[in-house]
Amino acid sequence: MLAAATALALPAMAQQNHASDSATIKKLYNEALSSTESYENLRYLTKKIGARLSGSPQAAAAVEWSRQVMEEMNLDTVYLQEVMVPHWVRGDKEIGRVYNSKLMGTVDMNIAALGASVGTGKQGLSAEVVEVQNFEELEKLGKKKVKGKIVFFNRPFDNTHIHTMAAYSGAVDQRGGGPVAAAKLGAVGVLVRSMANEIQDVPHTGNTRYEEGVQQIPAAAISTRDAEQLSSLLKDDPNLKFYMRMTSETLPDVLSYNVIGELKGTEKPDEIIVVGGHLDSWDIGEGAHDDGTGCMQSIEVLRLFNELGIKPKRTVRAVLFMNEENGLRGGRKYAEIAKAKGEKHIAAIESDAGGFTPRGFGIDGTDAQYSKALTWKALLAPYGLHDLTRGGGGADIGPLKGQGTVALIGFRPDSQRYFDYHHTEIDTFEQVNRREMQLGAASMASLAYLISQYGL
Amino acid sequence: MLAAATALALPAMAQQNHASDSATIKKLYNEALSSTESYENLRYLTKKIGARLSGSPQAAAAVEWSRQVMEEMNLDTVYLQEVMVPHWVRGDKEIGRVYNSKLMGTVDMNIAALGASVGTGKQGLSAEVVEVQNFEELEKLGKKKVKGKIVFFNRPFDNTHIHTMAAYSGAVDQRGGGPVAAAKLGAVGVLVRSMANEIQDVPHTGNTRYEEGVQQIPAAAISTRDAEQLSSLLKDDPNLKFYMRMTSETLPDVLSYNVIGELKGTEKPDEIIVVGGHLDSWDIGEGAHDDGTGCMQSIEVLRLFNELGIKPKRTVRAVLFMNEENGLRGGRKYAEIAKAKGEKHIAAIESDAGGFTPRGFGIDGTDAQYSKALTWKALLAPYGLHDLTRGGGGADIGPLKGQGTVALIGFRPDSQRYFDYHHTEIDTFEQVNRREMQLGAASMASLAYLISQYGL
Ligand SMILES: [Zn+2]
Ligand SMILES: [Zn+2]
Repeated sequence: MLAAATALALPAMAQQNHASDSATIKKLYNEALSSTESYENLRYLTKKIGARLSGSPQAAAAVEWSRQVMEEMNLDTVYLQEVMVPHWVRGDKEIGRVYNSKLMGTVDMNIAALGASVGTGKQGLSAEVVEVQNFEELEKLGKKKVKGKIVFFNRPFDNTHIHTMAAYSGAVDQRGGGPVAAAKLGAVGVLVRSMANEIQDVPHTGNTRYEEGVQQIPAAAISTRDAEQLSSLLKDDPNLKFYMRMTSETLPDVLSYNVIGELKGTEKPDEIIVVGGHLDSWDIGEGAHDDGTGCMQSIEVLRLFNELGIKPKRTVRAVLFMNEENGLRGGRKYAEIAKAKGEKHIAAIESDAGGFTPRGFGIDGTDAQYSKALTWKALLAPYGLHDLTRGGGGADIGPLKGQGTVALIGFRPDSQRYFDYHHTEIDTFEQVNRREMQLGAASMASLAYLISQYGL
Repeated sequence: MLAAATALALPAMAQQNHASDSATIKKLYNEALSSTESYENLRYLTKKIGARLSGSPQAAAAVEWSRQVMEEMNLDTVYLQEVMVPHWVRGDKEIGRVYNSKLMGTVDMNIAALGASVGTGKQGLSAEVVEVQNFEELEKLGKKKVKGKIVFFNRPFDNTHIHTMAAYSGAVDQRGGGPVAAAKLGAVGVLVRSMANEIQDVPHTGNTRYEEGVQQIPAAAISTRDAEQLSSLLKDDPNLKFYMRMTSETLPDVLSYNVIGELKGTEKPDEIIVVGGHLDSWDIGEGAHDDGTGCMQSIEVLRLFNELGIKPKRTVRAVLFMNEENGLRGGRKYAEIAKAKGEKHIAAIESDAGGFTPRGFGIDGTDAQYSKALTWKALLAPYGLHDLTRGGGGADIGPLKGQGTVALIGFRPDSQRYFDYHHTEIDTFEQVNRREMQLGAASMASLAYLISQYGL
């Protein structure tokens, strides 16, 4: 078996020049680690432009600024792709308050409206709270115990997961599906425990969903610390009342753009490799790790190629997607246009898990594509890229799935700190380490380089 | 070849129970990631006790507090080990000033006296500055150009190293050897560019050395940002003068302690496995990553064993070494006593590279020891411990070398952020992520567990 496998692997390996590729990859890392340009770009995006929710003036500014950044880079082409995006606004700073608890009287709590949520009206709403851990518990309670109340989804992250994304996946159904499930039973509002590993004061926003025909009720994230306290107060006094006030609302859609720049392939320009992140962010914080770093890294991949004089055989295209956070309109539009144009995407690499130290890539592709990526393992291992796993991709590149045999690849940085910042006011530039971010850019550049040389 | 190697490996493997070990290791990680105890201990050590340079009241407080923490843990034994330590004090906040530059006139610069440095006298000293990158350049300048001047060692970190420890190793000779080399040529003072990857405002202290028979001249670290500026001002005006004032001095040695707690082995109690870090820190900041985390992780290893009811076959001993930073007296004393008692150390694992996300272990041992450790690779890989490399160890455990066949093992966390904080006022609790720190503790516990089961 082993001998046969080795023999089969040989022809593919023979075309490749390990020593030369190894030297190129080393140069990519050297340049990335020696440069501050991408990091200073991130500073501008986060500090000068700031939070940039779809439809906001800051999102428009980010489009124009990032287009200019790429225009100045001597690329083969830079262009915008029109896309209509949702325009949700948070309104006034939210108020969350337990106001008649037996033990502590009035207690202010940190809440943040979930994206897409309707407001409470200016008067706010006040109701008793019923706590559940999951949808089964909610169903069991039934209409009688839920009607007229605020449903409080309080299932915490399972902290024993090594990868925090797994903990997120195990909890985020509450945020997405909570309002519909609660409204079906007559609830008047929803509180969702923030998606975080730690006990913190900051609430974590994020999108929720409504369904046609189901009452749209206001929904907010509550900080993990306040979730713990609310749960404890409820044990003492199940009849306490919670006051929440949110003036969030959805305005008409707005014209926005994906921002695209590319280096044309010298031998197979029609074969396209995307490197991308999303340019929009939530409206609190600065969208630094989510996903300013992914965008700056994608641009940096092209800068590294240019700086080192690497002419890719296949086209390498940086795409800054608009509206990942609350609509995915940019990703969908990109795939739609690619299909209409008959573009041939062979791979898309998305960085949307933070600008942390690299661990590897998750690869959603055919067996052959995955096997081919594994032949590069020895080239990537010296840079800590040990995790080349099956499955992956990313939200923005997801809609490309099924267009030919495009491999959807998620860049995988270390996940430990991501949910300390994710969708909060503390996702700021200060939380990003230049070297970690640049190692990520070099990792993406290295994989894009190998694919541009040998296909996938 | 392959068949033979497999056959040879089998007997050793056969004694081991991979499935059971895998389950135990999973439990260690689960417990570590679910607990906040060690993190709260770190908070106490850093926030309530704070910086704890050898000989300081805080170092004494840290000894007593950590002894008590272990006393309350139901260990088999907890004890102190006397050791006389140096007592250097920084004195007043240092002043560094360029006071007659052509371009900018007077410019204040951030400096910090190097550990062991003499002071300048209360009047301070002022002299011209001569910049060098290394000792060869200094030698070439010769006495004529160096006499009466301040020598400014300004060789930066090589940022292209993936592991920042390699960059540190490539620059730290300036800090250790600068004053002696400069004094031999008649210099009156030394400035050393801070040991850091980034351009920052904070100076990084650290120990320096004098030699008998060579004039002891005052030496300070200068922040990387000010090093860049000083260098640029010097290009403009080589005759500018630098004023430095430091009142640091060395007081008589002080009695201090290593703090030790252990779980006795059930089958081979005479075979000892050390897990350790150093309890002392520099006198600025809070000594959080260096090395509060290493100490708290070492204690946590024992707590994890106890909590899970793991009775190690061999003795597992947590050692909080005193005086790593400016003398290594604790590490030397520990080895001396071990030798005198005829103790049999089979392995020592040190955590002194920060409480960052784990990457692996560096193993300084025999071929057989290293090969045996490699048989555990598959057990450790799921936790991101891919780097099981030859060579390693740690400063405190170094003096054990040669006592039988003890393997000296350095725990290797991700190194990217370490030199942002190392030996500065920003090495604080806030820079430590609970999960990263706890993953480190679980990594140490897992390796200690395997060695306690199977020897090394
Ligand atoms: Zn994102
Ligand atoms: Zn240390």
